Amino acid sequence: MTDGRSPEEVIILGIDPGTAATGYGVVARRSGGGVSLVECGVIRTSTKRPLSDRIREIFEGVAGLIERHEPFVVSVENVFLGKNAQSALKLGHARGVILLAASLREIPIAEYAPRQIKKAVVGSGNATKDQVGFMVKQQLRLKDAPTPADAADGVAAALCHALMGSFPA
Amino acid sequence: MTDGRSPEEVIILGIDPGTAATGYGVVARRSGGGVSLVECGVIRTSTKRPLSDRIREIFEGVAGLIERHEPFVVSVENVFLGKNAQSALKLGHARGVILLAASLREIPIAEYAPRQIKKAVVGSGNATKDQVGFMVKQQLRLKDAPTPADAADGVAAALCHALMGSFPA
Repeated sequence: MTDGRSPEEVIILGIDPGTAATGYGVVARRSGGGVSLVECGVIRTSTKRPLSDRIREIFEGVAGLIERHEPFVVSVENVFLGKNAQSALKLGHARGVILLAASLREIPIAEYAPRQIKKAVVGSGNATKDQVGFMVKQQLRLKDAPTPADAADGVAAALCHALMGSFPA
Repeated sequence: MTDGRSPEEVIILGIDPGTAATGYGVVARRSGGGVSLVECGVIRTSTKRPLSDRIREIFEGVAGLIERHEPFVVSVENVFLGKNAQSALKLGHARGVILLAASLREIPIAEYAPRQIKKAVVGSGNATKDQVGFMVKQQLRLKDAPTPADAADGVAAALCHALMGSFPA
């Protein structure tokens, strides 16, 4: 590959799954441990469209990110579940096609609970959304925290793995 | 296509989703309304493997059935949910990749609640598994009810659409 990427750099794709909005962040980690933001954003789907169309958009969005960035690992937020089985089922549809997109390309998947992500990025499992945004901004030396919050959550998932995961020496 | 299939026949792929066992049935419906069983079975995945591998097997299994049978419609059981959000999330992963396999091939998806399927096949929304198996056997003129029960449920989902759905004149 001659994509201008340093050979000592690995790319981590972080994802915060959701049927309406799936946030993502692409983070580069240098062998020394330094991190920088490559891209972040949100895959939005319309609640007016059938679920099958919406999850296809999520699948194609994530597959496209994998295609373009060739991540070393995909880091996915492993949602804490409320008691609503109906929302869990819907969220499962989105998570399923995200894991599939990584699996079809043989890319390892790392899963982190929201608390683990907050702990890794902010130092506390109880951090607020604002605190997560602030620390993502600091750690990646950005002018502002990524917006919207879903994009920041995707970046936080990637950053969590950059800080906690294991990498080739 | 010269697959020996009558031009007045449409193929319905019925699916009963599950992460451990996804049952399926392929039913042919003639323009007069007569039905026959083409194939049925179960896509089983090992609980010892990571969820991402398991949903990939389900996706590839369903995509393979679509490839081989070119169904007119995919009829999917729209599970009644218990209160367990964790099982709903897991089931959502399986359902998500099943809907995706149909959507990627632009095949319409019909969703039926278990009660609707039982009502269509047996005549009562409260039918037992044995009654469903028995009526599937009768309607499709089989020697025995399809086994295991997951396969029979997949066939019942297909049969439900064959009896209830709308078709080209």
